[in-house]
Amino acid sequence: MKAIDREARISLVGAGPGAEDLITVRGLRTLQDADVVLYDALVSEKLVAEIPAGIKKIYVGKRCGQHSLNQQEINTLLVESAFTYGHAVRLKGGDPYVFGRATEEIAYANTFGIPVNVVPGVSSVTAVAASQGIPITKRGVSSSFWVVTATTKDGSFSKDLSLAAQSSATLIILMGIRKMKALSEVLLQHKGAGTPFAVLQNGTLENESCAMGTLGTMAEVSNTIDFTQPGILIIGDVVAEHNFFFEDDIQRVLDSVL
Amino acid sequence: MKAIDREARISLVGAGPGAEDLITVRGLRTLQDADVVLYDALVSEKLVAEIPAGIKKIYVGKRCGQHSLNQQEINTLLVESAFTYGHAVRLKGGDPYVFGRATEEIAYANTFGIPVNVVPGVSSVTAVAASQGIPITKRGVSSSFWVVTATTKDGSFSKDLSLAAQSSATLIILMGIRKMKALSEVLLQHKGAGTPFAVLQNGTLENESCAMGTLGTMAEVSNTIDFTQPGILIIGDVVAEHNFFFEDDIQRVLDSVL
Repeated sequence: MKAIDREARISLVGAGPGAEDLITVRGLRTLQDADVVLYDALVSEKLVAEIPAGIKKIYVGKRCGQHSLNQQEINTLLVESAFTYGHAVRLKGGDPYVFGRATEEIAYANTFGIPVNVVPGVSSVTAVAASQGIPITKRGVSSSFWVVTATTKDGSFSKDLSLAAQSSATLIILMGIRKMKALSEVLLQHKGAGTPFAVLQNGTLENESCAMGTLGTMAEVSNTIDFTQPGILIIGDVVAEHNFFFEDDIQRVLDSVL
Repeated sequence: MKAIDREARISLVGAGPGAEDLITVRGLRTLQDADVVLYDALVSEKLVAEIPAGIKKIYVGKRCGQHSLNQQEINTLLVESAFTYGHAVRLKGGDPYVFGRATEEIAYANTFGIPVNVVPGVSSVTAVAASQGIPITKRGVSSSFWVVTATTKDGSFSKDLSLAAQSSATLIILMGIRKMKALSEVLLQHKGAGTPFAVLQNGTLENESCAMGTLGTMAEVSNTIDFTQPGILIIGDVVAEHNFFFEDDIQRVLDSVL
């Protein structure tokens, strides 16, 4: 075991949006240098399988509705792992700093004097749209994008949502697929019923899925979504840039809702 | 030369935010499979140097103020390269779909029947903040972020900027460092003078730089910026999460402006 010889240190590594080869070269090297890896539910099984056999692997995932470990427990386990094994890598889906709670883990580790290194990852926010041929910005269509979680701590919609709806920004809404009906009501106060949207699940993986529609049909389309999987909502005219939007998919959406 | 045997095809590959090892594993493999690589000014020299010697390299970069090729010329060259050499890789700084004009290149290639594959990259938008220890979202501080280019085609500020300024979103402004004074005037209509900001240049590279201040001092801080390098502006309370903000850097900012 390498660990005994090594100083405690921590790396927060972004695993990327899903597919195992969308981790960065630096991320993969950091992973291969680990003594122990703590990984998320959002990290692909194939990437976990690629971690060399001599490295200890600990699952700390949270899944919608069933928290296996809370954030404080993860913080504690991460610090303990670094002291016990040496180089502890916290492998997180997407990018550690984009809704990744990296700051909390860094602050906790720093109170123990453990150095923390962050390796950025491809954020799902941008990559899963790309995987479906949806550009989140396009000249003449949208020159900005706004990434927002659907709800605040108390369960209400963020008031930023209303401001975002008034803008020409492409909206990228995380943790919102269970609330599509209510979301469409807020958005329809400012945007036309014909505004296209897409719901992307398992982005960049083999079982990637994409449902599309317009704000006017959002409530109905939501009936066709599998809510056991997390998903990203993309709302705005750029969705219509999706290569096949006006061919196969629009028909599939119409078939599913009519 | 491999090219003669191969069908024309195109891959748009995100090179990541700067450092050569922040390209994805898939991106690097795609690059190694290329017959010809067309690369940007924003792609690191070290990454270009890693492209195997047998692969033809073509520089198509645009730099602020001196366009070497316009977008139509790049489109044409990309298609010609694929027909001439086989697998043409268009290597772009950041992510191809985040202000990367990927859609235009795909549409043009498709009119010639050339298949196009997109490999996402780590966007500078998220990574350069991470590189300075600035989380673009943080529980209790900011639950959304807005990425916007500073100006529209006609040179005026996007009206989205005013909506963004009214929100609690972290603002990430691209192509705005030359207009910091005017930007601060718009933002101060809705945000407090004490709101922190950072200007990040050459993010994730050895010569990375970070200048910080508050909206109230933005005009003065802008006098200390080297405008020959592109930069990203980050505005919002998350900037204060930067590890050393209240120690070294705030003093450096004060020293430079007072």
